[in-house]
Amino acid sequence: MADRADRLSDLVAEAGLDSLLVAELTNLRYISGFAGSNGACLIGPDTRTFFTDFRYTERAAEEVEGFEVEIVSGDWLAGLAGFFEGKVGFEDDHLTVRTALKLEDSASESAELIHSGGLVESLRRVKEPGEIERIATAAELTDSLYHEVMERGLTDRTEAEIGAFVVARMREVGGEPSFPPIVASGPNGASPHAEPGPRVVGKRELVTIDMGATLDGYCSDCTRTFATGMLEAMANESYEVTLAANEAGLKAVQPGAVASDVDAAARDLIEDAGYGEYFGHGLGHGVGLEVHEGPRLGARSKDVLATMEVVTVEPGIYISGFTGVRIEDLVVVGEEGIARNLSSVSKALTYID
Amino acid sequence: MADRADRLSDLVAEAGLDSLLVAELTNLRYISGFAGSNGACLIGPDTRTFFTDFRYTERAAEEVEGFEVEIVSGDWLAGLAGFFEGKVGFEDDHLTVRTALKLEDSASESAELIHSGGLVESLRRVKEPGEIERIATAAELTDSLYHEVMERGLTDRTEAEIGAFVVARMREVGGEPSFPPIVASGPNGASPHAEPGPRVVGKRELVTIDMGATLDGYCSDCTRTFATGMLEAMANESYEVTLAANEAGLKAVQPGAVASDVDAAARDLIEDAGYGEYFGHGLGHGVGLEVHEGPRLGARSKDVLATMEVVTVEPGIYISGFTGVRIEDLVVVGEEGIARNLSSVSKALTYID
Repeated sequence: MADRADRLSDLVAEAGLDSLLVAELTNLRYISGFAGSNGACLIGPDTRTFFTDFRYTERAAEEVEGFEVEIVSGDWLAGLAGFFEGKVGFEDDHLTVRTALKLEDSASESAELIHSGGLVESLRRVKEPGEIERIATAAELTDSLYHEVMERGLTDRTEAEIGAFVVARMREVGGEPSFPPIVASGPNGASPHAEPGPRVVGKRELVTIDMGATLDGYCSDCTRTFATGMLEAMANESYEVTLAANEAGLKAVQPGAVASDVDAAARDLIEDAGYGEYFGHGLGHGVGLEVHEGPRLGARSKDVLATMEVVTVEPGIYISGFTGVRIEDLVVVGEEGIARNLSSVSKALTYID
Repeated sequence: MADRADRLSDLVAEAGLDSLLVAELTNLRYISGFAGSNGACLIGPDTRTFFTDFRYTERAAEEVEGFEVEIVSGDWLAGLAGFFEGKVGFEDDHLTVRTALKLEDSASESAELIHSGGLVESLRRVKEPGEIERIATAAELTDSLYHEVMERGLTDRTEAEIGAFVVARMREVGGEPSFPPIVASGPNGASPHAEPGPRVVGKRELVTIDMGATLDGYCSDCTRTFATGMLEAMANESYEVTLAANEAGLKAVQPGAVASDVDAAARDLIEDAGYGEYFGHGLGHGVGLEVHEGPRLGARSKDVLATMEVVTVEPGIYISGFTGVRIEDLVVVGEEGIARNLSSVSKALTYID
């Protein structure tokens, strides 16, 4: 944790700032270890101050190391601003307009507030070994639930029932869904963000299940599409093309690769197969403390991949009124190519009653 | 729903605006009915435009009434800003600094962005009869769980086990906790926001349980403090003083009452009993789509209560290293005094093994 604060402090100095105010709670947790609901910290080469209120005095003492802890009483923002000196960066992508104005009004004239979003997020992209283990454990839970779902079967159950089953099972082992699971059968599969509904899964159709768990603070994310019997030719072909695109995307994952090139490796394959218009979202995203974080893998993303980032590769084909397929793996970027694929469930088209 | 948009439109005109951009998702749901994860609307005397992206085309068609629906493709913020004309209010207490700047950069020169937070929240304070029924149903669920907890008993269970039990039971009936339940026993009760932990509830101590459910979109919130046997005199007195403060607070709830006066009615009683330093938080808050919303009942709150607002009254006494008490009711402000107390669990000191 102290190491994270040191690395952030280096970024703060490189950005020409005297300090950075970290107030977004996930960023704060990453930097300070504090997991309560109200806090902030000020970090710079000469500054390590952690702020919270009286409710969290004990919690801060337990969780926060390497910071001077200030318990703010009275007005919270004025309390923080009283510590501002020189060029103080703030998370302009998280603080509201009103909060930023109040901080500015409360700060002394010697302080200048500078728009500085994204610094902690850029650190969070590259995972430590311990973080990768926690993501891997969350991914193992998800994989075991895919196997349970396959054993129970899909047909004659509603999407909602299947979704509720995986949520309940995650919670039984102390996890939480990292997002509400998607169970999209038949024509519902054409909507990439379908909510599991009252539709009963029928025979001879595709069923897309997209789910992830949060365990010990870290998230997983995986999608598989199953068949409940022999499919029409176009559904079969959609699956084969999506799988090939998934594999092409995985091959393109390399440290130093530009995200838009990785996206293109999968997208070009789908376009060449004539399904280009049916793949309307980006190829993937980073996963960690949040299920969606940096880097972003999309057609317009200039993010450059680095070793020890954890990203999804999830191409899809969505044909309105007919069917949908998505195949998503969660992988660790290695020294060369992929170090680990954390999604172990088979991607060969699997038939389940 | 259309009625809500009309009332908001009146507020927009009164504020001298041509339209208001509503982007905060709970506000958006309240005004438009849309419960998806990406959307916004522009509302004014001559404007009713709802924005979302391609993922929610069908959902918007199902849920949103009385608006022209625009499906934004490409850049989201630029898509919204393209519709700005004249004085456009925005939620400065929700939009980030970065988002507001992008909107400003993308808008035409004929548009002016005006800081206008709180308009939808001011409408949300006063509930419609249907909203009160939904809050009452969520409160009934919470009350029934207090009875289950009492029947099962408290001693020899960990706080965490009791907390997990109420969460599991809420979910069995389709609810969710409106916040993580607090179960704080013995000295842990001295922390108003204690998380249920591994501590085993002992005999002859106080146990504070603060919980609420979200059901059908609406929240409840209730706190009771139980005794697991005969108490020391100071714990007994803390309970009696807190209960008297709760009742004094309830009596002060009136349409037209200034929130700080309601807070003072309870706080003065606690101070007069010599426990003033042990009551470190405000008396209460509004409850609705969110478990914390307006009005705010605190020593510095200038909010004025109105008929059909739903608020908590929750004084407490927290003595570090010793014990804590909090007693919280959820009530509907009537034409005169309180119309309904939605918390039905007895407040007489109750002994539970």
